[in-house]
Amino acid sequence: MNHRPLWLACLAAVCLSLPAAAEDGYDLWLRYRAADTREYPALTTSLRELVTVSGSETLRVAQAELARGIAGLTGAPIAQVATPSQSGALLFGTPRSSVLIAGMPLALERVGNEGYVIRSVAVNGHPATVIAGNSDVGVLYGAFHFLRLLQTRQALDRLDIVSRPRIQRRLLDHWDNLDRHVERGFSGQSIWDWHKLPGWLDPRYTDYARACASIGINGSVLTNVNANATSLTPAYLEKAAALAGVFRPYGVRVYLTARFSAPIELGGLKSADPLDPAVRAWWKARIDEIYRYIPDFGGFLVKANSEGQPGPQDYRRNHADGANMLAAALAPHGGIVMWRAFVYSSANSEDRARQAYSEFVPLDGKFADNVLIQVKNGPVDFQPREPFSPLFGAMPKTPLMMEFQITKEYLGFATHLAYLAPLYEEVLDADTMIAGKGSTVAKVIDGELHGYKLTGMAGVANVGSDRNWSGSHFDQANWFAFGRLAWDPDASSQAIAEDWVRMTFSNDPAFVKPVVDMMMGSREAVVDYMTPLGLAHLMGTGHHYGPAPWISDLSRPEWNPAYYHRADADGIGFERGPTGSNATAQYSPKVAARFADPKKTPENLLLWFHHVSWDQRMASGRTLWDELVHRYDHGVEAVRQMRRTWDAQAGRVDAERFAQVAAFLAIQEQEAQWWRDACVAYFQSVSKRPLPAGAAPPAHPLEYYKALSFPYAPGRG
Amino acid sequence: MNHRPLWLACLAAVCLSLPAAAEDGYDLWLRYRAADTREYPALTTSLRELVTVSGSETLRVAQAELARGIAGLTGAPIAQVATPSQSGALLFGTPRSSVLIAGMPLALERVGNEGYVIRSVAVNGHPATVIAGNSDVGVLYGAFHFLRLLQTRQALDRLDIVSRPRIQRRLLDHWDNLDRHVERGFSGQSIWDWHKLPGWLDPRYTDYARACASIGINGSVLTNVNANATSLTPAYLEKAAALAGVFRPYGVRVYLTARFSAPIELGGLKSADPLDPAVRAWWKARIDEIYRYIPDFGGFLVKANSEGQPGPQDYRRNHADGANMLAAALAPHGGIVMWRAFVYSSANSEDRARQAYSEFVPLDGKFADNVLIQVKNGPVDFQPREPFSPLFGAMPKTPLMMEFQITKEYLGFATHLAYLAPLYEEVLDADTMIAGKGSTVAKVIDGELHGYKLTGMAGVANVGSDRNWSGSHFDQANWFAFGRLAWDPDASSQAIAEDWVRMTFSNDPAFVKPVVDMMMGSREAVVDYMTPLGLAHLMGTGHHYGPAPWISDLSRPEWNPAYYHRADADGIGFERGPTGSNATAQYSPKVAARFADPKKTPENLLLWFHHVSWDQRMASGRTLWDELVHRYDHGVEAVRQMRRTWDAQAGRVDAERFAQVAAFLAIQEQEAQWWRDACVAYFQSVSKRPLPAGAAPPAHPLEYYKALSFPYAPGRG
Repeated sequence: MNHRPLWLACLAAVCLSLPAAAEDGYDLWLRYRAADTREYPALTTSLRELVTVSGSETLRVAQAELARGIAGLTGAPIAQVATPSQSGALLFGTPRSSVLIAGMPLALERVGNEGYVIRSVAVNGHPATVIAGNSDVGVLYGAFHFLRLLQTRQALDRLDIVSRPRIQRRLLDHWDNLDRHVERGFSGQSIWDWHKLPGWLDPRYTDYARACASIGINGSVLTNVNANATSLTPAYLEKAAALAGVFRPYGVRVYLTARFSAPIELGGLKSADPLDPAVRAWWKARIDEIYRYIPDFGGFLVKANSEGQPGPQDYRRNHADGANMLAAALAPHGGIVMWRAFVYSSANSEDRARQAYSEFVPLDGKFADNVLIQVKNGPVDFQPREPFSPLFGAMPKTPLMMEFQITKEYLGFATHLAYLAPLYEEVLDADTMIAGKGSTVAKVIDGELHGYKLTGMAGVANVGSDRNWSGSHFDQANWFAFGRLAWDPDASSQAIAEDWVRMTFSNDPAFVKPVVDMMMGSREAVVDYMTPLGLAHLMGTGHHYGPAPWISDLSRPEWNPAYYHRADADGIGFERGPTGSNATAQYSPKVAARFADPKKTPENLLLWFHHVSWDQRMASGRTLWDELVHRYDHGVEAVRQMRRTWDAQAGRVDAERFAQVAAFLAIQEQEAQWWRDACVAYFQSVSKRPLPAGAAPPAHPLEYYKALSFPYAPGRG
Repeated sequence: MNHRPLWLACLAAVCLSLPAAAEDGYDLWLRYRAADTREYPALTTSLRELVTVSGSETLRVAQAELARGIAGLTGAPIAQVATPSQSGALLFGTPRSSVLIAGMPLALERVGNEGYVIRSVAVNGHPATVIAGNSDVGVLYGAFHFLRLLQTRQALDRLDIVSRPRIQRRLLDHWDNLDRHVERGFSGQSIWDWHKLPGWLDPRYTDYARACASIGINGSVLTNVNANATSLTPAYLEKAAALAGVFRPYGVRVYLTARFSAPIELGGLKSADPLDPAVRAWWKARIDEIYRYIPDFGGFLVKANSEGQPGPQDYRRNHADGANMLAAALAPHGGIVMWRAFVYSSANSEDRARQAYSEFVPLDGKFADNVLIQVKNGPVDFQPREPFSPLFGAMPKTPLMMEFQITKEYLGFATHLAYLAPLYEEVLDADTMIAGKGSTVAKVIDGELHGYKLTGMAGVANVGSDRNWSGSHFDQANWFAFGRLAWDPDASSQAIAEDWVRMTFSNDPAFVKPVVDMMMGSREAVVDYMTPLGLAHLMGTGHHYGPAPWISDLSRPEWNPAYYHRADADGIGFERGPTGSNATAQYSPKVAARFADPKKTPENLLLWFHHVSWDQRMASGRTLWDELVHRYDHGVEAVRQMRRTWDAQAGRVDAERFAQVAAFLAIQEQEAQWWRDACVAYFQSVSKRPLPAGAAPPAHPLEYYKALSFPYAPGRG
């Protein structure tokens, strides 16, 4: 029996039929719009009262979130009581904060420090639901999971959920500069308003931390990997500390990037040599100071000796020397170093795809215990498709963490709809074969395969000052999916998409199914209209906006698209087998054998690993040239189909978000066509082969595409 | 009798007691929250039905705005009818769009093309209200005026309002770059998302145009005066045209800035000489092209031969040659040139305050009919206080338009509360005495004094991507006040503040009175804690954030604070009387005589015009040195008082806006103290005089203030 007064229920029903707030995407997936309780009666039967607990700020946040979510979804506030008095009570807390929970046989030892149990129980003979964890933040994660059940209309009467994160450090890397420019950011400025910090704590900081906690993200690297020493000065530490204070109740720790030459720039030293005692003393003092500002500071992310950044090699030291020096100063405080393996050098003629492996594998086992090596998913740089990095599996004595890119530097910026979870999943599920079949990348980074004591996954954030946070509504799904996969690398990209669609847009099956299908195919569409068949890095110089496969005159060879595609009169592709750069040999023998043989290499990676004749027959029966054009056309057609899918959803989604998605898809179709036409025009100028029957000639001559210039494309480095 | 059903009224009353939307400032002054109809019964008695008209998009916008405003304020939709059927009808339109209005004796010839009449009338014996204009946009302006009456709770039964703008071109100048950086912008990025234009028309563009129309602004210069020729390329004209399409129904025309060297940069010409036929032909073709994209394009704003910008003097031509060349190409399309008089040169040793007059007055009468000279309010650069520019009144044969700064480059950025209308008013009311007493600056720029055929007023916009548009809630008032004063330069800054407070926050008299008083004193507080007694330009180099009176080593003399204050062991101030630079002689004789004599110069401009002994007695009886310290202290104390005033308003305003204003005032107090301490420390190091009794010593030694550095202050040029 629902004890809320009838007038309140009526009021709720009526009020909620009025527009409550603009549908501008600010709510993200935490969109607690009213459910129809006739279709989803569990909402009222299972949620009659919320049993409060007292304790930390984190528990207060969990309680407020549950109250807010339930009020939104049911249309009326839930009664908050000190002890359960009827059926339909919702309890939450830890054994320490709740005597009732302490008395339940929940076997909480299974969920570790951050996990939780959600279970249907009986309290004094009444059906109830309990959300319990060993820590307050575990309870908060459980609360968000419980709300997700409501948002996606799950049954609530026989709950028995046990969840714990598989990865310890689940981080967002913000490539945000102190002037609020976001490198590779396509959603406005940095949300960190450094100038007004610490005096003004924008409520958006709280909403950011809340969104992170809702998907299990527990750390935030505030600053760009192309680091600025100024972020380590007292004025900026005070600002970072203010953010840490806002994030703390949500279980989100603050990390910073360290510029390796900071001892020179800030300390006035002559050197940044990691073995120089003065340098070590400087870092120790600086790190001790950081912990005075931020007692739970997480540690440093470091990009060193890469793309012009300073590093230990400037002093003939190696990456381990550099990382261990910082690690030694961080260790007493519990801090860690995340040292990036994204290194390559224009002075090194070795295949760029090989360089990280060549530099890091010899250092396996040489890093301090509180160092993680952060490895990008592929050997080059966040392309629409790359094979997994050969480092995964190759450093059993050194914990490797994953670096994914959530922001779409190479996948159409904010206007292209590309759901990235299938890309993440493809990498996590990839089999390194390092210890036999099933040695997946996921098992490397979650520590199972090599017994890593420290584990992590980072995503380069797509969060900015745009009202909808991520630049587009659908890009929010990539933030969401990253968090979910960092919690559970075996989660299904399709299931995550379905959760997200239901939470963000609608539970209407007529909406959910086609929109999830559209998302699931979207990344492959980008691959096809940008870089099919294993091609990579054909994007415009610097900004990476639009096609420029013709570029071959940049001073750094590995910045030229021509370096990657190597198209000539005979064929196309980068030969990385034994007759070429032999990058394939960096994989474990069985994988190497497969990639080394063009016949065994999957077609979707063919041109990554091999230079192939234009006339080679493909699985389809087409020649490679015809297949390439076909793929480009297929990519464009896929976007057209996405538009049709979306346009058919008019009326099933609010007009405001419908219009933006529709407009962005129109831009995407136009730009997919541009990609296709420019690439086909260019490659045809090299292959000298006729277009296959039925393929339309490019809309403009090649020179037209070459002449286009985009000096103000967003997100520049 | 109110014919809306009771249940609807009840529902409205109840629903509106729930939080309808976040109070984040996005609504600006167009905040149509429900009024208590018992306290303001006119809402229901006078507004029973809205009589619709058909016609232009502009009339549709006016109708939608009236319906939206009335629904918000009354809590229920107003009936929309084709013909009035009862008392309380609201009619709007032009004589062309409405037969009823055509039949009324409204004497619309009084209101010109953009004005309106709002009058209580009888229709078929029933009391009604009519909003009428000669043009659709006049009706729209009238609709906004009418809604303002409702928002500020005015009586509606005996309306007889006649209004027409005194100034023709009422413009916002956006100093927005194509990469979305806003020069001197303190409210996020540019709202023009060039990269996504024209494919995506952000609804914010519509809301911008609506806000502009609500205060009578009829033009928008989209791009920075430090101009980029790329904005004149087809790709960008297509984007600008898309914005023009959004703005058009709101009566807002698009203008652009013209980079004088564009014929070289875009056209490949060797010269940009305005008398070169090839250059003239290039501009003509380019301007013809602009009008193909934007048929109602307003024209160009030009900064030439100033601060490094190219201009006609590069070819030994003068400003008139340059302006007239562009004007000739614009004239056939009805476009205008706004040529800035903000010129000064490091190669010119003449007092910077004199240079604009010296360059422009000799050109009086030499400009084409469609040229306006845009003159900053003061002779230097948007300081907290300057005397009016001596150009006003000195160019009777050349229309001068006013350039105010709405963004607070020199008045504390977005975090300091400084209501600028008293500054604008002080300048508009200043008496040039050029044609006897009462020859105010307002009468110069509205054309009355010299019979200008073209008139204009521009405000450098403070609009950005921040959710609240202007960076702070109170900075919205400066946008609002600028528009109101451009419409009527004789309007009262106090009355405007009262309107704004009522529309934006509350009609509660306990709120309105103290908050308006706080606003009215706020600019003077900034003058006192930054640049009292006629001091100017003591701000930090480049960014203009914070005090730096000690700077004296910059290569351009007139960029040094020391150039302006000229403090030495004997005294302080810039001698501009006959014994000094004789800038006073640029004013009309009676004004010149007053400014030339230190005894007659108003104390608030004393150090602008005179170098004065530290021991000079002031009106207060204090020495100048003691008075200076007193003024700085007074400024800080005034901010403390503003904080007390605001803190007492807790509960009278929503928590969200209350908190931000309170936090910003705390920052302002801290920074006011910093200004006072740094300036007192510095000037004391020069005056060598003891602090007056009771004055606290600065918190830190002078070196501390000198060492502060702000490399990432926002808004840099």
